[in-house]
Amino acid sequence: MIQVCIVGYGNIGRSVLETVRASRDMALCGVVRRSVPAVLPAELAGVEVADSVDKLSVKPQVAILCTPSRSVPETAQQYLSKGICTVDSYDIHSSIYELKTSLESTAKEHGTAAIISAGWDPGSDSIVRALLESCAPKGMTYTNFGPGMSMGHTVAVKGIEGVRAALSMTIPLGTGIHRRMVYIELEPGADYAEVAERIKTDPYFVHDETHVMAVEDVNALIDMGHGVQMIRKGVSGETQNQRFEFQMSINNPALTAQNLVNCARAVLKQQPGAYTMIEIPVIDLLDGDPETLIRRLV
Amino acid sequence: MIQVCIVGYGNIGRSVLETVRASRDMALCGVVRRSVPAVLPAELAGVEVADSVDKLSVKPQVAILCTPSRSVPETAQQYLSKGICTVDSYDIHSSIYELKTSLESTAKEHGTAAIISAGWDPGSDSIVRALLESCAPKGMTYTNFGPGMSMGHTVAVKGIEGVRAALSMTIPLGTGIHRRMVYIELEPGADYAEVAERIKTDPYFVHDETHVMAVEDVNALIDMGHGVQMIRKGVSGETQNQRFEFQMSINNPALTAQNLVNCARAVLKQQPGAYTMIEIPVIDLLDGDPETLIRRLV
Repeated sequence: MIQVCIVGYGNIGRSVLETVRASRDMALCGVVRRSVPAVLPAELAGVEVADSVDKLSVKPQVAILCTPSRSVPETAQQYLSKGICTVDSYDIHSSIYELKTSLESTAKEHGTAAIISAGWDPGSDSIVRALLESCAPKGMTYTNFGPGMSMGHTVAVKGIEGVRAALSMTIPLGTGIHRRMVYIELEPGADYAEVAERIKTDPYFVHDETHVMAVEDVNALIDMGHGVQMIRKGVSGETQNQRFEFQMSINNPALTAQNLVNCARAVLKQQPGAYTMIEIPVIDLLDGDPETLIRRLV
Repeated sequence: MIQVCIVGYGNIGRSVLETVRASRDMALCGVVRRSVPAVLPAELAGVEVADSVDKLSVKPQVAILCTPSRSVPETAQQYLSKGICTVDSYDIHSSIYELKTSLESTAKEHGTAAIISAGWDPGSDSIVRALLESCAPKGMTYTNFGPGMSMGHTVAVKGIEGVRAALSMTIPLGTGIHRRMVYIELEPGADYAEVAERIKTDPYFVHDETHVMAVEDVNALIDMGHGVQMIRKGVSGETQNQRFEFQMSINNPALTAQNLVNCARAVLKQQPGAYTMIEIPVIDLLDGDPETLIRRLV
C-alpha cells in the first residue's frame, strides 16, 4: 500500500480523500491543515488530522498537495526536504518550468521525486496535447475550455471594488477563443455600470468578449462541471489534413483529484527529480501489474 | 542527427522515408530489402539500398522495421543482436506481450532497446486508452474503428476460393461493434452466392454483420484514409459520468510512419529493454529541447 497524506483540505482535498479511498493500492496517513478545527467534517471521522506532517503517526511516502497554487512551491520544497515525494496541480502555466527547476535540485538532494502540474490542464490534457503534436508535428492545436467555472477569473472579479460575490464562466467559442460570462452580486450602493466597466477593463478580461450580469445569488449558479475540446489539424510526414480531436465533460475537482492520486502512484516509480506529466510513462499512472495492463490497453 | 535505416519497403516503408526526410533530427543510412531491384523508384535516388544492414556504409543507431508483422519478431532479434535499436508496428494484439518479453532479454544482453507495436492502434491510441482509464478507473472504453480498410480482413478475403481481388472496409457501428463491407472481384466462373457464403462463414467475419459486393475493379475503391473514435464513460474517485472522447481521421500509413519515426527518436532515450508506447514518456516522442517542449505543451 502506498502511504499518502493530503495537504490542504478545500474542494480538491475533499475529492482526493474520496479518490484515495476508492484506490485499492493507497492508504491514507492523514490530512495536514494549517489549523485543526475543533469539529471535523463527518467524512474525516477516523482520519488523523494535524497541523504538521511530523505529527502523523505514519510517515507518508507521498504528500498530495491540495493547497492554492501560489503556496505550492514552498510547500513542495518542505516535503521533498523531509524525504517525502510530492504531487501538485500547480496551474500557473507561465512558471511551470521554473517550479520544475527549483524542485528538481531539492528532490535529487534528498532522493525524492515530485510530479508537478498534475491536474487536468495542465496535467492529463498536456499528455494529449504532446501526443497530438507528435502525431502531426506540423500544424495547429487549439484547446477550447468550458463551459465551466474559471477559478482564476472568479478570484480576479472578487477582488474588484463593488463586487460582493462572483462567478466567472468560461465559454468556448472555438480556435482557443473564449467568452467570459461574469455573474456578480453587487455590494450595497455599488453602481452596476461602473463595476461592469471595471471588470471589462481588468487585465484578466480586457482581451476577451466579456458579459457582466448582476444576480441575486451567485452561489445558486455554481456547479463543478467543466469541459475541454482540443483540436489538432496537421501534417504527419508529408501527409496533410490529419485531424485529431479530444473532448471531455467532467467534474473538475474529481478529475483533478484522480490525476493527483494517479501521480502519487507514479511518483514512486521515478528516479529522483521533478517531472511534469508528459515526462512520465502513462502506464505508471495505473494500478495493476504491467503484464495485465499491457495486454488490456496496448 | 539520429542515424536510421528502413527495413522493408512497402506502403509503410515509403511513408517512413517521407517522414524521416521531414524530420530535422533524422538522417537516413539506407533501406534494407530482401532483394535489391535493378531499377529503384525515383524517391530512392541517392539512397543506399542493400539486402543486408551490414552492407550500409554507416551503421544505423535505429532500424525502423516496415516488414509484415509476422516477420517482426525474428527481424527485431537480428538487429538488436547487432547492437541496433528497433521500432516496429507489430499489430497482432494477442501476442504483443510475448513479443515484448522475447525482445527484452536480447535488448538487455546487447545494450539496445526496442519500442514495439508503435503504429496507431496499437500505438498512439494505446496511450490515449491508458490515459483515459487512468482518468476514470471504473468504467468502459469503446474503440470504434473506421471507416477504413482493414488489412487483416482484406488478406483473409483474398485467401478465399473464387476471389481474385478484395477489399474489406471496417465501418464503426458504436460500442466497439463493426460492420464489414467486403468488395470482391470474382474469379472467372466463380459463383457470387457461394463465394459470399464462404466469406460470411469465415472466422474473420462470422461474428460481424458482413455485406459482400461483387465489383469490376477493387483497386478503384481503395483509399488509405482511416479513423478512430474512442469513448470512455466512467468514475473518477467516487464521481460518476465522467465522459471522454478521442477521434481522429487520418491517412493510415502516414500516421503509422510518423509514430514509428517518433519512436526511433524515443528509443535512444530508454534504458536497454523492450517497451510498448504506454511505457515511455510522451515527451520522448518529440523533437526539441525539454524546456521549450514543457513550456509550450504542459
